[in-house]
Amino acid sequence: MMQELPLDQVHQLLQSGPVVLLTTAAQDRPNIMTLSWHSMLESDPPQLACVVSENNHSFVALNDTQECVIAIPALHLAEKAVQIGNTSGRDTDKFAAADLTARHAWQVGAPLITECFANLECRVTDTRLIGDYNLFVLEVVEAWTDPQQPNPKTFHHPGYGRLVLDGEDISFASNVR
Amino acid sequence: MMQELPLDQVHQLLQSGPVVLLTTAAQDRPNIMTLSWHSMLESDPPQLACVVSENNHSFVALNDTQECVIAIPALHLAEKAVQIGNTSGRDTDKFAAADLTARHAWQVGAPLITECFANLECRVTDTRLIGDYNLFVLEVVEAWTDPQQPNPKTFHHPGYGRLVLDGEDISFASNVR
Repeated sequence: MMQELPLDQVHQLLQSGPVVLLTTAAQDRPNIMTLSWHSMLESDPPQLACVVSENNHSFVALNDTQECVIAIPALHLAEKAVQIGNTSGRDTDKFAAADLTARHAWQVGAPLITECFANLECRVTDTRLIGDYNLFVLEVVEAWTDPQQPNPKTFHHPGYGRLVLDGEDISFASNVR
Repeated sequence: MMQELPLDQVHQLLQSGPVVLLTTAAQDRPNIMTLSWHSMLESDPPQLACVVSENNHSFVALNDTQECVIAIPALHLAEKAVQIGNTSGRDTDKFAAADLTARHAWQVGAPLITECFANLECRVTDTRLIGDYNLFVLEVVEAWTDPQQPNPKTFHHPGYGRLVLDGEDISFASNVR
């Protein structure tokens, strides 16, 4: 189930640096990669930077189509996220291999992932740093959340298959977004 | 206590997106800001992107000196990190206000923070995206860890003073760095 999310709330999903899944579709062939190297750039309209190595099969699809979806998995998808990172779209249908469901996006050709609690439809808006750092600037043009996953726990990847799951939640008075 | 860290291990400290502290020193005046908008760009030599808003007092110092330190706080510094984010270096000596200890870095003018479990001395190496996104590309030129904080838990900031502390740690076989 997917519910539209106001674009000015997207930064709250991404600025804590969760592991995300990035989908592309080149020549109608959907693919997924796992990604930790991303940062918010602007809150409203939401823009982010993400690094997709030219060694990733997704690089060519993202570069050619200039579109992708950033899908955010909760805990129950942690093992699948690692499995997706361990295989290449060159020789694997990752949706089938990970038993995930692709769904048409509204504004981009790349697919949403039904099982993720958030899906962000993105267009590449700045290509200046692709050559030197494989860094794509993305603008989120449409955002979806799953109301049936109301308090998702995300996870982070310090490296080498080790994941750190979201733990205790604490709050301090803050005037910082 | 500080121990030099090989530069090819730096990415493991940052790629999970922890809240970090960024120090600068302009006209010998040390300052600190709290930052969540950063991403690794390259592992070796380590480069990262970080967004320092022009609304932050640190922007001018970073832009003028082209140097900073990225210091990574563990849990026991969570409240101080929020407090640092709530005040401005314009009218506050943040080291004094947060009771943190500045220490001379080796290669840059910005100070290390003794209480942090890792300190990364950085130089700005690409200024192309500062104008449009306040995005600085940094190269880590020297890295330090505190052997007395061997298994630090970090924390992440989904926004508005809410922090999520590192929780359970799980591992899967991975060929992904």
